[in-house]
Amino acid sequence: MIRSFFDKQYIFDQNKKHSHKVEAQYEAIAEDINNRGINPNDILNKAKSFSIAIPSWGVATGGTRFGRFPTLSEPRNIFERMQDCIIVNQLTQCTNEVSLHFPWDLDAGNNLSELKETAYNFFIKFSAVNSNTFQNFRNQIESYKFGSLTHTEKKVRDQAIAFNIECIEYGKLLESKALTLWVGDGSNFPGQQNFSKALSRYLNSAKVIYNSLPEDWNLYIEHKMFEPAFYSTVIQDWGTSMLCAQILGKKAKSLLDLGHNAPNVNIEMITSRLIQFNKLGGFHFNDSKYGDDDLDSGSLNPYQQFLIFNELVEAEYSGKLIKKPDYMLDQSHNVTDPIESLMTSAESVQRSYIQACLVDRDALHYYQENNDALMACQTLKDAFNLDVTPILQKARLEKGGATHLVESYRNKNYRQLIVKERS
Amino acid sequence: MIRSFFDKQYIFDQNKKHSHKVEAQYEAIAEDINNRGINPNDILNKAKSFSIAIPSWGVATGGTRFGRFPTLSEPRNIFERMQDCIIVNQLTQCTNEVSLHFPWDLDAGNNLSELKETAYNFFIKFSAVNSNTFQNFRNQIESYKFGSLTHTEKKVRDQAIAFNIECIEYGKLLESKALTLWVGDGSNFPGQQNFSKALSRYLNSAKVIYNSLPEDWNLYIEHKMFEPAFYSTVIQDWGTSMLCAQILGKKAKSLLDLGHNAPNVNIEMITSRLIQFNKLGGFHFNDSKYGDDDLDSGSLNPYQQFLIFNELVEAEYSGKLIKKPDYMLDQSHNVTDPIESLMTSAESVQRSYIQACLVDRDALHYYQENNDALMACQTLKDAFNLDVTPILQKARLEKGGATHLVESYRNKNYRQLIVKERS
Amino acid sequence: MIRSFFDKQYIFDQNKKHSHKVEAQYEAIAEDINNRGINPNDILNKAKSFSIAIPSWGVATGGTRFGRFPTLSEPRNIFERMQDCIIVNQLTQCTNEVSLHFPWDLDAGNNLSELKETAYNFFIKFSAVNSNTFQNFRNQIESYKFGSLTHTEKKVRDQAIAFNIECIEYGKLLESKALTLWVGDGSNFPGQQNFSKALSRYLNSAKVIYNSLPEDWNLYIEHKMFEPAFYSTVIQDWGTSMLCAQILGKKAKSLLDLGHNAPNVNIEMITSRLIQFNKLGGFHFNDSKYGDDDLDSGSLNPYQQFLIFNELVEAEYSGKLIKKPDYMLDQSHNVTDPIESLMTSAESVQRSYIQACLVDRDALHYYQENNDALMACQTLKDAFNLDVTPILQKARLEKGGATHLVESYRNKNYRQLIVKERS
Amino acid sequence: MIRSFFDKQYIFDQNKKHSHKVEAQYEAIAEDINNRGINPNDILNKAKSFSIAIPSWGVATGGTRFGRFPTLSEPRNIFERMQDCIIVNQLTQCTNEVSLHFPWDLDAGNNLSELKETAYNFFIKFSAVNSNTFQNFRNQIESYKFGSLTHTEKKVRDQAIAFNIECIEYGKLLESKALTLWVGDGSNFPGQQNFSKALSRYLNSAKVIYNSLPEDWNLYIEHKMFEPAFYSTVIQDWGTSMLCAQILGKKAKSLLDLGHNAPNVNIEMITSRLIQFNKLGGFHFNDSKYGDDDLDSGSLNPYQQFLIFNELVEAEYSGKLIKKPDYMLDQSHNVTDPIESLMTSAESVQRSYIQACLVDRDALHYYQENNDALMACQTLKDAFNLDVTPILQKARLEKGGATHLVESYRNKNYRQLIVKERS
Repeated sequence: MIRSFFDKQYIFDQNKKHSHKVEAQYEAIAEDINNRGINPNDILNKAKSFSIAIPSWGVATGGTRFGRFPTLSEPRNIFERMQDCIIVNQLTQCTNEVSLHFPWDLDAGNNLSELKETAYNFFIKFSAVNSNTFQNFRNQIESYKFGSLTHTEKKVRDQAIAFNIECIEYGKLLESKALTLWVGDGSNFPGQQNFSKALSRYLNSAKVIYNSLPEDWNLYIEHKMFEPAFYSTVIQDWGTSMLCAQILGKKAKSLLDLGHNAPNVNIEMITSRLIQFNKLGGFHFNDSKYGDDDLDSGSLNPYQQFLIFNELVEAEYSGKLIKKPDYMLDQSHNVTDPIESLMTSAESVQRSYIQACLVDRDALHYYQENNDALMACQTLKDAFNLDVTPILQKARLEKGGATHLVESYRNKNYRQLIVKERS
Repeated sequence: MIRSFFDKQYIFDQNKKHSHKVEAQYEAIAEDINNRGINPNDILNKAKSFSIAIPSWGVATGGTRFGRFPTLSEPRNIFERMQDCIIVNQLTQCTNEVSLHFPWDLDAGNNLSELKETAYNFFIKFSAVNSNTFQNFRNQIESYKFGSLTHTEKKVRDQAIAFNIECIEYGKLLESKALTLWVGDGSNFPGQQNFSKALSRYLNSAKVIYNSLPEDWNLYIEHKMFEPAFYSTVIQDWGTSMLCAQILGKKAKSLLDLGHNAPNVNIEMITSRLIQFNKLGGFHFNDSKYGDDDLDSGSLNPYQQFLIFNELVEAEYSGKLIKKPDYMLDQSHNVTDPIESLMTSAESVQRSYIQACLVDRDALHYYQENNDALMACQTLKDAFNLDVTPILQKARLEKGGATHLVESYRNKNYRQLIVKERS
Repeated sequence: MIRSFFDKQYIFDQNKKHSHKVEAQYEAIAEDINNRGINPNDILNKAKSFSIAIPSWGVATGGTRFGRFPTLSEPRNIFERMQDCIIVNQLTQCTNEVSLHFPWDLDAGNNLSELKETAYNFFIKFSAVNSNTFQNFRNQIESYKFGSLTHTEKKVRDQAIAFNIECIEYGKLLESKALTLWVGDGSNFPGQQNFSKALSRYLNSAKVIYNSLPEDWNLYIEHKMFEPAFYSTVIQDWGTSMLCAQILGKKAKSLLDLGHNAPNVNIEMITSRLIQFNKLGGFHFNDSKYGDDDLDSGSLNPYQQFLIFNELVEAEYSGKLIKKPDYMLDQSHNVTDPIESLMTSAESVQRSYIQACLVDRDALHYYQENNDALMACQTLKDAFNLDVTPILQKARLEKGGATHLVESYRNKNYRQLIVKERS
Repeated sequence: MIRSFFDKQYIFDQNKKHSHKVEAQYEAIAEDINNRGINPNDILNKAKSFSIAIPSWGVATGGTRFGRFPTLSEPRNIFERMQDCIIVNQLTQCTNEVSLHFPWDLDAGNNLSELKETAYNFFIKFSAVNSNTFQNFRNQIESYKFGSLTHTEKKVRDQAIAFNIECIEYGKLLESKALTLWVGDGSNFPGQQNFSKALSRYLNSAKVIYNSLPEDWNLYIEHKMFEPAFYSTVIQDWGTSMLCAQILGKKAKSLLDLGHNAPNVNIEMITSRLIQFNKLGGFHFNDSKYGDDDLDSGSLNPYQQFLIFNELVEAEYSGKLIKKPDYMLDQSHNVTDPIESLMTSAESVQRSYIQACLVDRDALHYYQENNDALMACQTLKDAFNLDVTPILQKARLEKGGATHLVESYRNKNYRQLIVKERS
């Protein structure tokens, strides 16, 4: 069912006209890096081993409550979505994980075994599974209009709990290792909800789900300041998220979505706090300017993205990051081809990671210890200002990905090739 | 087709058990007002003459991009929506205007003459008409995915212009006197749109529409900081709105939606600026806490709503408000019965207006001139702290509305009565 | 040294012309309250027992980094500040606590015993003491330019720790029962500070201070999003505050300053969270619109202040509030007479408390349980809309305070009386 | 009086060990640029001709209302400040303008002729002069506590007007060509100020000042959302600023300070609007994260700074920028050596400008016209990702500046050399 549109040979041919220049430019930057006292090979290997998950829903055209403008070749079910996810990985070679969302991804029936097998054939693994209890679906008895895990009525909570446990079962089948728990439960009016009772109900519900987790799984608690609830949300910030994770136990971790915080907050600092208290589970990457949470990663504030990775690399360097957190792109592609946005976004996140690896950490620590604010700042900028494009291209070249992502993708005319079967 | 569920007799019966207490409480506050040197009758008359428009779409259950949870008795077309709007007015007696939205309100065919006649029978007039060029509709040739009035392609702009002119025609039929122009046109990525070319295209398009206005009409330009575009919006703030209104001419005015501004901005000050430069056309009332724009008016920050009316009453008092601006409720009712939200919201706005009328303006001016900040502040609070509920109830009682809005509405069991025919 | 300008007799005389009306208006509202099924006497007693602390620095004219415009009768030392604090309490009868700040309040030498004795004669107690390690003072060896409790150098941290312990000693002398720990430590540049090391140093320093607390004392940890550090602050939000309080132990609590949070955050929800995790120590009341934290309490958003008290009263009602948190006004009076601002602010906070006491809690709970969002919202508004001024006046009348605060204060011409001795 | 610490020979010697590498790296990037179809020489010349003004007060250690931590070698008067400004220019070769601030810069008496002569000897010109009417100074009769140009009392407005005219006289002496008008006038309480009367008074006052301008001067109107006034500010945003500039006349322009806007607003879009309506006078550069306005330019969000220059270069390219706006650094250096911050900030702004010059504008326009959002975004990123450091270094090398700013500055040990005479 799933076909390989961008096989090794196609990509190899596409790379041909660029590979010489990529190699030359890589040599130049490798020398520069070497002069900084860093082994360029280590950096290249870090680029090659970097991976970020694609959410299955990310390959469909997104929208707002004001409308959605789909293309003619929208994927119609999880197999078609998987095919598009595979393409992203074939070209970028850094997105070999897909994150499923239920019940959305049951739209081709419960053929999850077949899905898994096919995905594996294309070197795709399954990262955290996501449960949707913010919408009503066919055959669903209780409505989530007034909440799911925090609903005032036990039967609604029970339904939501049961569905989360069902999602764990799907995940086990897929060899996922985590469940991401995001609920939109909250209120639109002062007084509508009793804050403390709602949180207690959340914790009670989450405990049942937590207890259903396999031994080697994690539960990721994702906070969000608002939307769809516009006055209060039960897990409204990282503070509540972490306190809940502490209560639930060591398998429970916090998940940080870049677009889910209050205006102006220092997200890299939250990253550091989650690491310090050993509760950083993962990230949902995107960018945002206003109250939204869905623009392409690094498209508006690439330096903030770099600063987040600076914390991650710092923690790795100092041995404080016990386990690499899960990364996922969580974006809505309203005006671009989702495949293109996912490719360039994955590269953008990878770029931030590599730039953070190039920070002269010993110098940074020296300046920090001596309160040399200016040189500490410049040390970060020295790494950020570096154009690491050749490293990213070289990493893809060596792994069989496309040095020039959008160009190679467009040359294939993929959308035209599939428009007939999908429309 | 439209039936009267809440006729005078029903309401009279409902009021019976309250009227005595309402009269007594009104007497008490009237005396208090009198002691403040204000004629209570004037205030009562202001309450009775206050009016705010209901948007036709406001009586349907709203939603977010995450889902919508409709009731079983959703109105299915403009006639059913009109019936619900009429109910709001029958009970509140302060919402005798309805604002239509096209093409949404063509869903019962183009029976606008019939609609108008029926509405008139229920004492409903039509306020500004709204044109939708942010969604694609059946039979529409060009897509608004990348904009409407600002689109890079002339044929798309022309389609959007033509549709606006069509809306003016509908409005003429309905005896509306204004067209509200809100476009979501903008961009999601830095670079996507050339800011200055887009604004020039907007102005060129708007000029054609402006020139199609009847002599006694206004064009209301509504700004919005973001959504559905998340990086830039062509009419992003009151500054751009007013500059465009100035360029277009004297029939063009700015419309201020309380939820469409940047965080923290002083909305009452924008109100004052729009009055000062003679460009205040109207308001869309709602409340919001985060990046949203759809909660019930005055439900989160009633004092801000009061301060806006303080500017309006001040301008009226000083003769600077040449024409009363148009008021409309622009809310999304996701978790309440829309009729109940509209009734209580209309009352909330009316309350702010009446409180603002009770400000001792001469004292306020004296304190302002003498930089007595504390007493100026207290003078506003003295009016705001007053519980003017009896005045609002008395005004309704005299006009044949319900003293107790929600109670009288619920006693009828309206939703049950219509659920069968509507589902 | 401290004189009584507003003695009982003066206030009694001032009240004379108002007392009749106050009693009448109180009777009216008492009847209304009674009709709501609430005992008006209970409410009156709550008003009478309400108390909020005044910070000693609050009676001086504040300023910004752009300038300060003092009056001619500024208090010149802690005894004169205490005199002004006493006046606030003589008139309001609800501010019988003063919060000292060191080393500022050592400006009259270390005559704290004398200060205490005098204060006690005027029925003033001492609430939490505050330690200043964000400025450099004469005789101070190490500079706090780059931090105090989190400084990279041990000798600076030790100095800051020692000073906090010194403050505890002062507090013991005064019979204070808490130390409020606010530090401005942070950074202005990405990279300047290692976030996790800084927090570790904070915790290590705070532990030493914590261990120096008497058995019946509390340590209040106050967070602040920014200022004076503009990129990061070590205790940046309630999440970090609470996690630190948990680590330090049961005497450590979080203190919530209304102006120290990110834009748009739901402060009443933070209140609820702090109660739920048993870490609510106290409040610093003020109001703010932008990034500031110093305007008069309730002057911009009185409904938010009411919603915070709604959480406090709810917790009291449900038995979850084990100990009443400490309240303090934390404002900067730049354009008003500080005594007037403090009086009206204290009354504003008291008003919110009394309004919250008038919420029909059983009805509210019923609506919450049944997801009747609209009626839950209206239930809160029903209490908020009540003009409880007569209750506040009656409470003052019975306690010997002034029914009309500003009027009685101004009639005395206090500033003129003291201007000579103070200038 | 002013000595040259960093003369050509010193800098030449400092550059020696770097110049070979700088040349080599410049060659590499020049080739890359050439391959992009852009003449690298043009870019180098743009870097060489770039200039940004230094404010005289910027070389002193800044502070907050919580404290200030000066160094031991603070400049004590305008001559010493000028010496430090000269150093910034000697090393960067891109800051040959100084902006004075009165009455602050009269602290060495009114020796402005001598100051001008000395500055000219060091190739320093004078950009816009700034008038301070937000503080009270010795010998000043009327207080600005409640405003200056907008004060309710004529005598205070007259004093402020007269002082602005005095500043124009100083500026004429210095051959400045503009007066920057920033007033902190506003209010801290709702009701304190009548918004419309205050703006009318502002306009009346500004007209008198405007009429005193020499023919070839500009008046720059600078808006600010808040601070020192915390509820309202008379020129609160670009909308009010531009409307006032339009009313005053063609010599009046708007000045955009990056830190003076509401959270989240799109500053590059404001830039575009000001250009489109021909009212862009100048910029005050800095960076900020919260409600502040004083961090080092580009230190937190370098991409935003790039996007602003993208608008400026776009307007230049399309012939819409009739006159280059004035650039100035407006920062507060609380934790760094001000000279170091100013040097690296000037370089940061220059970097953004050069990156913006490297945008492939024809490609960008093509993508914009075709709504290829992704490629438009990538086109900007392609320029931003370029490490243009060698271009900036080469430009300095050719002009006699230091290739390595901080290193060359620190090697001199300037602070040690002057500490004795200044302390």
